[in-house]
Amino acid sequence: MKIGIIGLGLMGGSIAMKLHETHEVFGFDINQSTIDYAIKHKMIDGGSTCVDHFFSDLEVVYLCLYPTQIVPFIQNNQSFIRPNTVVIDIAGIKLPLQKKVLPILREDIDFVLTHPIAGREKIGIQHAKSSIFHNANYIITPTSLNKESSLEIVESLAKSMGFKTITRVDAFTHDDIIAYTSQLTHAISLALVHSEEDSINVSSFIGDSYRDLTRIAMINEPLWSELFIENKEALLSKISAFQESLSLLKSTIESSDSNVLQDYMTYVKNKRLKIEKG
Amino acid sequence: MKIGIIGLGLMGGSIAMKLHETHEVFGFDINQSTIDYAIKHKMIDGGSTCVDHFFSDLEVVYLCLYPTQIVPFIQNNQSFIRPNTVVIDIAGIKLPLQKKVLPILREDIDFVLTHPIAGREKIGIQHAKSSIFHNANYIITPTSLNKESSLEIVESLAKSMGFKTITRVDAFTHDDIIAYTSQLTHAISLALVHSEEDSINVSSFIGDSYRDLTRIAMINEPLWSELFIENKEALLSKISAFQESLSLLKSTIESSDSNVLQDYMTYVKNKRLKIEKG
Repeated sequence: MKIGIIGLGLMGGSIAMKLHETHEVFGFDINQSTIDYAIKHKMIDGGSTCVDHFFSDLEVVYLCLYPTQIVPFIQNNQSFIRPNTVVIDIAGIKLPLQKKVLPILREDIDFVLTHPIAGREKIGIQHAKSSIFHNANYIITPTSLNKESSLEIVESLAKSMGFKTITRVDAFTHDDIIAYTSQLTHAISLALVHSEEDSINVSSFIGDSYRDLTRIAMINEPLWSELFIENKEALLSKISAFQESLSLLKSTIESSDSNVLQDYMTYVKNKRLKIEKG
Repeated sequence: MKIGIIGLGLMGGSIAMKLHETHEVFGFDINQSTIDYAIKHKMIDGGSTCVDHFFSDLEVVYLCLYPTQIVPFIQNNQSFIRPNTVVIDIAGIKLPLQKKVLPILREDIDFVLTHPIAGREKIGIQHAKSSIFHNANYIITPTSLNKESSLEIVESLAKSMGFKTITRVDAFTHDDIIAYTSQLTHAISLALVHSEEDSINVSSFIGDSYRDLTRIAMINEPLWSELFIENKEALLSKISAFQESLSLLKSTIESSDSNVLQDYMTYVKNKRLKIEKG
């Protein structure tokens, strides 16, 4: 297949890198130096800073843009897209995007909303790494307009990228669960580092627990502020639920009741072990 | 050197495994099957379920027990310890222990309080792994009674185990910082899993961020409830500071002010990157 990748950042670069093993891949980015880098590192067959180049020829297009860039991109560039092209987005929120894109979309383009749950706490094509998709989860939120054949193409490409579990779910459910598993975890990590007293140097006192909980605090600010704000309602509700759970734990510690504290831990441990098993 | 390890759990087993490469190591555990396992896997030269065996011969003894077991162990067994033996504890809290042990300790025993900041979310000798110490942090909280020569023995053994940074600090400071880097992170991880709605199955929606933040929720309940309660005052203060940071983030998200949100993220990111560099 001839596949286009719009936006050669960490995610676009990683997708290009992997799909280029078995497909013809063309990259589009606002920076010529990024395209040069992608060609030099054999991630793409060709590329351009303007989308009319190569574009009319593509069968599948991945939009690897920040959520707020997707609507303007569609508005300005869909006239260049070949009829029946499958256009796939990979943003971390789905319902607001679906509501904005569908009304402006050309009828002969099949826009498939997806979320590859993979990433790194790095920015830019030089950190692209196709192994981030290995055994990861991939979510598709089909709309009533999607053709089954397009969804199957998306699933087959996800499988070839290395994703293990591919799930179809409605956009509302996606945004609700992702607010918990992804946006809440980032919010917690940020607040944990934020609360550190400046007067102490913790470097010599950290172990894997601190490292693991704060890795994602090295965040891509523009991307994540979009994700937080676009999914605000669900995220605020998950933060509130977390605050209640933490308050309960705090008062249990305050009471020094070892049995009640161990019960809380056992409840959590069993819950977490269940998820581990899938 | 002839080294004794009291308690062949995950930590005692890992220490035995590593020190056995260059020293004579004897293990003590309440379960004969654990000693058999350690001998079979060449972690120790010999072992016993009662401490009088081999004990009079040891130069260094590691106490790899739960914090609350240390005082009873000293009371019941210090009569078997050879004069001038260096006894090392490895518990995650230091000041309460120091206050309890020093008044009851035989004068000719040098008790060195330490904290190897390493571990796994597993329990028992079968999960022992000497690589957990590689490049990790090690804290020693010397008392006025410790001989410099004993502290140097402890440091030299820590280096040979693979620890990278060995820091001497007073017990109060240790407990205060560890409440933040270790106990708070565990409390947060527990509350995060606790707050998950039972009605949703998150397994297909998780990525590395969720996995990293919840790994330590698979906790050793008796050990961590002791650590939480023994260091209650410092931990509660760190939880409060975290709650304030999270509330601030929450109201920033509520306001949908992308600039203020990005400023919060940038502040945190720079703070975290500084720690990464050491």
